[in-house]
Amino acid sequence: MATEDVANRLVQLCRKGKNKKAIDELYSKDIVSIEPVAGPAGGAVTEGIEGVRKKAEWWEENNEVHSAEISKPMVGRGEFAVRMEYEVTFKPTGQRNKMVEMAHYKVKKGKIVEEQFFYHMPGA
Amino acid sequence: MATEDVANRLVQLCRKGKNKKAIDELYSKDIVSIEPVAGPAGGAVTEGIEGVRKKAEWWEENNEVHSAEISKPMVGRGEFAVRMEYEVTFKPTGQRNKMVEMAHYKVKKGKIVEEQFFYHMPGA
Repeated sequence: MATEDVANRLVQLCRKGKNKKAIDELYSKDIVSIEPVAGPAGGAVTEGIEGVRKKAEWWEENNEVHSAEISKPMVGRGEFAVRMEYEVTFKPTGQRNKMVEMAHYKVKKGKIVEEQFFYHMPGA
Repeated sequence: MATEDVANRLVQLCRKGKNKKAIDELYSKDIVSIEPVAGPAGGAVTEGIEGVRKKAEWWEENNEVHSAEISKPMVGRGEFAVRMEYEVTFKPTGQRNKMVEMAHYKVKKGKIVEEQFFYHMPGA
């Protein structure tokens, strides 16, 4: 798959909330996932598809999603970006937050090999 | 200019450090610039080209840039994204930092009408 096709398919699946399917279908087994900071689900850097699956599961279990707006992909050569806006309640604290982030993906041989998340501070 | 041309020109100018020329040439006079948090140069949201020029001047005066890596643009419909890595010393404190950010731009009628910055935390 070309980078643009990977990008479009990822957005299509994420808009439907099918994040696990996206991982299964589009992610390299050697995926590297980079969060801005280490979190309760693990360190800032997660390597390998099993770790990324666990991180996604942790996120789903701990957040109630009220709304999600996912942009069309912005596509470059072997990389693409997606802007995401979520309104979620973090279940352990009951706190409702608006999150705005950019996700940056690198693609090699039709698979996503790296994802990195960039945040806009909540409440800023 | 098409979005892709605006994107390529912005990257070309930023790579040469010609940020003021980029503002003059590519920004709408009604530009809205959104930082993750309010900073010493002003609030999180700056409206209008004069405010954005002042913010750029403040940044240049207060930071010594050791290296800058600016990605090719990732282009969507009426929007694009650029990944930037800087190593800078913030002159007032003498602290040297690595910054990784995504910038997200909206384009209307050949001009950049909104820029928003998303950060990866330093040291994460």
